[in-house]
Amino acid sequence: MGKKTGKQTYHFANPPVVISTGTVAGPLEGQGPLHADFDEILTDSRNNEKTFEQAERSLLTKACQLALDHASCSTTEVDLFLAGDLLNQIISSNFTAGTLGIPFLGLYGACSTAALGLALGAMLLDGGFAGTVLTATVSHNSTAERQYRFPTEYGAQRRPYQQWTVTGAGAALLGYDRPGPKITAVTFGKVIDLGSTDPLNMGAAMAPAAADTIRQHFADTGWDPNAFDLIVTGDLGIIGLDLCRQELAESGLHLGENFTDCGVMIYDLQKQDVHAGGSGCAASALVVYGHLYRRFQRQEIQRLLLIGTGSLHSTTSVQQGESIPCVAHAVRIEA
Amino acid sequence: MGKKTGKQTYHFANPPVVISTGTVAGPLEGQGPLHADFDEILTDSRNNEKTFEQAERSLLTKACQLALDHASCSTTEVDLFLAGDLLNQIISSNFTAGTLGIPFLGLYGACSTAALGLALGAMLLDGGFAGTVLTATVSHNSTAERQYRFPTEYGAQRRPYQQWTVTGAGAALLGYDRPGPKITAVTFGKVIDLGSTDPLNMGAAMAPAAADTIRQHFADTGWDPNAFDLIVTGDLGIIGLDLCRQELAESGLHLGENFTDCGVMIYDLQKQDVHAGGSGCAASALVVYGHLYRRFQRQEIQRLLLIGTGSLHSTTSVQQGESIPCVAHAVRIEA
Repeated sequence: MGKKTGKQTYHFANPPVVISTGTVAGPLEGQGPLHADFDEILTDSRNNEKTFEQAERSLLTKACQLALDHASCSTTEVDLFLAGDLLNQIISSNFTAGTLGIPFLGLYGACSTAALGLALGAMLLDGGFAGTVLTATVSHNSTAERQYRFPTEYGAQRRPYQQWTVTGAGAALLGYDRPGPKITAVTFGKVIDLGSTDPLNMGAAMAPAAADTIRQHFADTGWDPNAFDLIVTGDLGIIGLDLCRQELAESGLHLGENFTDCGVMIYDLQKQDVHAGGSGCAASALVVYGHLYRRFQRQEIQRLLLIGTGSLHSTTSVQQGESIPCVAHAVRIEA
Repeated sequence: MGKKTGKQTYHFANPPVVISTGTVAGPLEGQGPLHADFDEILTDSRNNEKTFEQAERSLLTKACQLALDHASCSTTEVDLFLAGDLLNQIISSNFTAGTLGIPFLGLYGACSTAALGLALGAMLLDGGFAGTVLTATVSHNSTAERQYRFPTEYGAQRRPYQQWTVTGAGAALLGYDRPGPKITAVTFGKVIDLGSTDPLNMGAAMAPAAADTIRQHFADTGWDPNAFDLIVTGDLGIIGLDLCRQELAESGLHLGENFTDCGVMIYDLQKQDVHAGGSGCAASALVVYGHLYRRFQRQEIQRLLLIGTGSLHSTTSVQQGESIPCVAHAVRIEA
């Protein structure tokens, strides 16, 4: 049975284990600093498919298969599949769920989807409803850009504060009775909307939601931020990260060197032409399920706080002049 | 602690109660046979808002407030808000979550959202993670039609097998220690895609998914379909309902007079110009949270099986010639 601590945080009586992960990275992500920690790296971002949308779902399916293979687990042994993505009607997840044939719960949390899936999956396991849960997410630069922004053929000039949608997919198999890092606590965030209306500056829009959930997590748990080897948002980019750090400092929570962001980590911001860093569901999925999962395996980190952040706008809401609602969910993972 | 029975069904040790509900119906729905069982009926489907999208979210927020008011419950007493809708990026739910300020889990299940929210909410309650969960969904004819089909100004001729997107919103407050019907079991469905490619014939696309989940529910539980006062899909419309009944009969499961559909119930198919019946997240939300909830209160029904059905296509997937992935989730509610 789970236990609520404080206002928004849940602790697990029987913390679920991240049994295995699977990651597929796009070509640009495969040239970044974390390339050695991805299972597969595409040479062609269309992955031999007819459309970029088909490529996107093929990445998601592949990441799921890799996670299952790494644990020698078949789809019939998995109780529930939790997934979501950035495309309208989470179409990539819907098709992948059809391919896998596992009972499916569709999620929408934009770039917070990896954290949302981990948090919800952990609750369903600890609640006794499942022995094994597969959670996954995907994003693709070529599908997200043309859905949310401009046809890629336009070659629209990017603003310096824009983030680059990560191409990639990540999956995690959660369960028990196997070794691996454990999910020990989660904090579900509220939707925070401070009136930001520029969908190209998602880091600035999401920073207050990230700060709200981080503050709430530490208020609920009473933990010291220094207890974590790493506190990572996913994905504020370099501008959002600075804003979040500043907002937290102003409210008395001073995060140090151990505070960073998946969108900052996944690219070399000096050498790769990605402006403010990475975004998209795959940013945190690739960093956490690829890089950080291996750092847990190498015993380089013991305690991680992931704060998945989502910019929950639509093209319609932006075109109608609406502000951008944002959310952040925190997941504590311990060796 | 929950208990899995069979392959896809979960029973609750401590079945959560549907403490209260809130419903807001559109003008056409308010002229239908169930009008007396809705809390509020709009006279103007734009609800005095500037855009239909703003109207949609105002309906959702209102339905949530009605459910809370009926239980004399404030938002601060609610642990989690589970919601989704048909619009891209579930934008109505995101904005309503921002207004309510309750920690938010975004769901996507198209027209199965009411069932998905009830099922997931019940699991989180029975798992000990929450004392009170609010789940809600909304759809609006004027926003869905222009997003999924044609600008309404075109006046495109509707095909006889098409369903009419319901305008309305429904919310349910789930918890304990209050009287009300209880959620005793849920069955999560797999995504079924038999190759249907006509998004105007959603009933035909969804019928196999509904049949699959219904078959699985009865296989998992061993119950007799006659044990239910009502078995309702939501929402196959009249064509999908017939197809589903036929498919079930061919596999040896003969459902009788107690088997019907929320999209069939919500309108008078003879007098109202809605062709094959209602669709949209609000079809099952209005029928279950409005009409059937009151039938439980009037002690007219004791046992209900709701099978929420979702057609998980997007306009992009349809334009690219893809087939339609569908899902169905079952929720058993008992007095």
